[in-house]
Amino acid sequence: MTDVKHMKWWGWGLEGVGFHFEDKPAFVPFVQKAVGLDVRTPPVPPLSFDELTVAPPRLSPAFEAELVSIVGEENAFTDDKTRVVHTYGKSIRDLLRIRRNEIARVPDIVVYPGDEHAVQQIVDAAVAAGAVLIPFGGGSNIAGSLEPLADEERTIVSLDLGRLDRVLDIDEGSGLARIQAGAQGPSIEEQLNARGWTMGHFPDSFTHSTVGGWVATRSSGMQSDKYGDIADIARGLRMVRPGTVVELRPLPSTSTGPSVREMIIGSEGRLGVITEVTVQVHRQPAVREVQAYFFPNWKAGLAAMHAISESDAAPSITRVSDARESGFSLSTRKESKGISGAAQNVLMSVLKRRGWDLEQMCLSFIGFEGSASHVAYEKKLVGAIVKKHGGLGVGKGPGALYDQKKFDTPYLRDFLLDRGAAADVSETAAPWSKLQAVYDDTVAAAQAAYAALGVHGWIMCHLSHSYNSGACLYFTFAFVHGDDPIAQYEVVKSSIQQAFMTHGGTLSHHHGVGVEHAPWMAQDISEGGVALMQGLFDAADPTSQFNPGKVLGPRQLTASDVAAIVADAPR
Amino acid sequence: MTDVKHMKWWGWGLEGVGFHFEDKPAFVPFVQKAVGLDVRTPPVPPLSFDELTVAPPRLSPAFEAELVSIVGEENAFTDDKTRVVHTYGKSIRDLLRIRRNEIARVPDIVVYPGDEHAVQQIVDAAVAAGAVLIPFGGGSNIAGSLEPLADEERTIVSLDLGRLDRVLDIDEGSGLARIQAGAQGPSIEEQLNARGWTMGHFPDSFTHSTVGGWVATRSSGMQSDKYGDIADIARGLRMVRPGTVVELRPLPSTSTGPSVREMIIGSEGRLGVITEVTVQVHRQPAVREVQAYFFPNWKAGLAAMHAISESDAAPSITRVSDARESGFSLSTRKESKGISGAAQNVLMSVLKRRGWDLEQMCLSFIGFEGSASHVAYEKKLVGAIVKKHGGLGVGKGPGALYDQKKFDTPYLRDFLLDRGAAADVSETAAPWSKLQAVYDDTVAAAQAAYAALGVHGWIMCHLSHSYNSGACLYFTFAFVHGDDPIAQYEVVKSSIQQAFMTHGGTLSHHHGVGVEHAPWMAQDISEGGVALMQGLFDAADPTSQFNPGKVLGPRQLTASDVAAIVADAPR
Repeated sequence: MTDVKHMKWWGWGLEGVGFHFEDKPAFVPFVQKAVGLDVRTPPVPPLSFDELTVAPPRLSPAFEAELVSIVGEENAFTDDKTRVVHTYGKSIRDLLRIRRNEIARVPDIVVYPGDEHAVQQIVDAAVAAGAVLIPFGGGSNIAGSLEPLADEERTIVSLDLGRLDRVLDIDEGSGLARIQAGAQGPSIEEQLNARGWTMGHFPDSFTHSTVGGWVATRSSGMQSDKYGDIADIARGLRMVRPGTVVELRPLPSTSTGPSVREMIIGSEGRLGVITEVTVQVHRQPAVREVQAYFFPNWKAGLAAMHAISESDAAPSITRVSDARESGFSLSTRKESKGISGAAQNVLMSVLKRRGWDLEQMCLSFIGFEGSASHVAYEKKLVGAIVKKHGGLGVGKGPGALYDQKKFDTPYLRDFLLDRGAAADVSETAAPWSKLQAVYDDTVAAAQAAYAALGVHGWIMCHLSHSYNSGACLYFTFAFVHGDDPIAQYEVVKSSIQQAFMTHGGTLSHHHGVGVEHAPWMAQDISEGGVALMQGLFDAADPTSQFNPGKVLGPRQLTASDVAAIVADAPR
Repeated sequence: MTDVKHMKWWGWGLEGVGFHFEDKPAFVPFVQKAVGLDVRTPPVPPLSFDELTVAPPRLSPAFEAELVSIVGEENAFTDDKTRVVHTYGKSIRDLLRIRRNEIARVPDIVVYPGDEHAVQQIVDAAVAAGAVLIPFGGGSNIAGSLEPLADEERTIVSLDLGRLDRVLDIDEGSGLARIQAGAQGPSIEEQLNARGWTMGHFPDSFTHSTVGGWVATRSSGMQSDKYGDIADIARGLRMVRPGTVVELRPLPSTSTGPSVREMIIGSEGRLGVITEVTVQVHRQPAVREVQAYFFPNWKAGLAAMHAISESDAAPSITRVSDARESGFSLSTRKESKGISGAAQNVLMSVLKRRGWDLEQMCLSFIGFEGSASHVAYEKKLVGAIVKKHGGLGVGKGPGALYDQKKFDTPYLRDFLLDRGAAADVSETAAPWSKLQAVYDDTVAAAQAAYAALGVHGWIMCHLSHSYNSGACLYFTFAFVHGDDPIAQYEVVKSSIQQAFMTHGGTLSHHHGVGVEHAPWMAQDISEGGVALMQGLFDAADPTSQFNPGKVLGPRQLTASDVAAIVADAPR
């Protein structure tokens, strides 16, 4: 039995870890007001595993024997539990389906190769057998990048990279670490930190995602302002393809034609199996601080983040929440942590006296890293910009709390789902000049979707990453669902995605495409762009055996298609 | 008659502009020592245009009439001069061939479309007619990206983008400028500067290259440390393909699958015709300074650049020349400029007293931009690092001179060529830990090539760009050639390229691939990477009508192939 750990089959994270509201006094009234839900009502737990209907494996004995001979008996699984764990990622659509026993198709066998040679053997065997191959990292994807196509008639192999989990080497003279694709965030940082290095890549999924998955889906992390997105960080790659390994040596930059590196990044399994990534790493900074600021309103907060991006300062984190998300953050504060209740009340009364509308107030976190004097210098630059935009520094307390709890939000989603509310996230990136329109119309689109569904819904947002030319807006939405939650979710999700596209945003800044976002690809990269990409996929995989149907699929939506989905909303 | 300007058909830059040594007292003895050439010997000027043998156009009257009807009589040319100007770029191989009347194949017609619609019509007409299409920007390429294949039997259309030369729009709220592909460097900066902006992209070819060409060949500029390579700067693109325009909206970042943007960047005409680029622009900095430093030797200079890249400082330029290039720079100093002769002598005697070996001394330029206080802050950070590595600041004088003369070096090449010496450049990028080995072995490989050729050769180098994980090394080499200069050049060039590959460098950091570098692609991105890229090309252009033979070609060299080329060197 392999010792690779997986998340709960029915939700996020580890068994026994969950969200609790009892120590958060503002949470109950907040949720009541936001989505009309009394979280004190007893939960309806997910069904038990035995209640799931799981089809038996479609697998020839010869092919199974071949795979077993490659990875060994102890690393090949055809049991229901292992196959179900490898069926979905962790989107709300995934969780809703699995909790409702809606599993159209599961992988037929799950294999855990122990080295790249075994990956090559599996790839070649699968291609020869006419099977479908789906690479699996941490299983945290929320775009449907992992699920088998419902009507797939071929044998499906889930290739779990969990045993390839080591930092193989650090080139300390260049700051380049060679890491196996299946290594998860905490393990990578632990191995690097032990030698004084950090990768500085911290996506929200950090605790349960892998470097191979980050590359395969074009991940971004909460310190990407400083360290870059994974597309910047991943300097070298190895990807197993039929009969060969594509080997891209780590290079700081190159001008050798269309970038094969940038074809593999974001390929979501459609071009082959990523086995190794050489990433840029950095010496751990002497000082690392996350400072909190309040802005009087969203517009001021956005303008300040833009001004910082144009300034001489280069913080590691630039984050500002809209008023709704700021209210949410304050509602999940523990009585004993961060700004204490009493101190918070004093601060609020001061702000009120200054004429702030506390309902409009926005919470911001800015991160600083470097030598002590550099951090001081950058804080001064940022402080002046914050002040110019009417903002106010409130110190390290809330930032430290944010830093500590930043990976916990997904547990809240399971908590809400147990109580009949569906919540998920959608994010985009757009030029600075378009952000306000993207924001306004996304919020309006979600509200219109809620109205069409006749539900009490919620949407909140933060700016999560800044670039010279624009930023990422990250939306979280929730509503108390009815009998057809997936159809309801699709109305809301489609409305949000379409608002991104209509106002100059991308369909996804860092969550990838999978099957959920694929219908917007033609709007995102144009029909001509889709044709180029399809040409690449067809040439690389003429028999469509590598994670078929992901990134590009048969369905392309237009704005009027989405309007029709909203008009048909199930009430 | 179109008013698009071109460089000399036989050399670099504008007619009437050239290199002069009379005001540079150290130049004559320097060249004598470096390559054994007395530059005072009278030049042998290039042959006259009338002496060239130019084949008549292979062009059906119907296709010619169709192209003329698209662009107008005044924008379609079949005369010899226009076609020859569009045959080659400006590599030494190009100049040697044209000066020796070696023109295997010229384009059959040159067209200057005035808008994207006309480009679409030309593309569609060329595809329908079975013709080959080669996009042409400023014509400065030195990798053979522009030349028609010698044995091309189809009609060849050179599509000159020179009339598409405008900055169409600046989104001042995002710092994004929409620029037509044929706009040249000086025109772009002039149009941007007029509104207070800069693109900050200054390749050596700046004065005679276009933004479309920069994108098509993955250009990098001398301030790319701060502003990024063109792959970072180009946020949005438009490329005309058969029957369609690929439209990539400007986005700060995105996670929508394999990057089509990064497939188009570096595509050198093989995927279609780039018509428009939306680039990141920046407010012109309040202060801009280039400071000069001396280091006691190359190793110290390299180590200092590495330390700066790891530090909290973020200069706009990090450049250090090896001892040979430093000597060259000092030899081209005008008596009246920079450090005066007397001041230089005083400085040198001080350094000697400190124990420096002046033969090993290396000259460095570091650029700073931002507010006055930010520039002061960064200079202090850099100054401390320089000092720690035994370096010495010598002020703004030499830097200002460098800044002013930086685009003039190519004129020197023509000057030398008139006098029987062949000179060109080769550049690579590699991780920091490999730079010294790349450097040592490239120099040794060039010397071995010179020995095999029995010539007195020269090679010098500077580090031109720093990244977190490595840097670009830029080599310039020269030798007095014999009767078969192209074969001699290939021995030297191949030796240098192979040294890059063997020691972990890329075949080209910013000069692109063309036909000259194509034989090293399999060593650079592996056979599997070549197959992926070839698949993309074949899918996008199944009849191979878009600049065929560039980036990937039929010939792939190994280290032993190159050794055989050296062994066969013509003496």
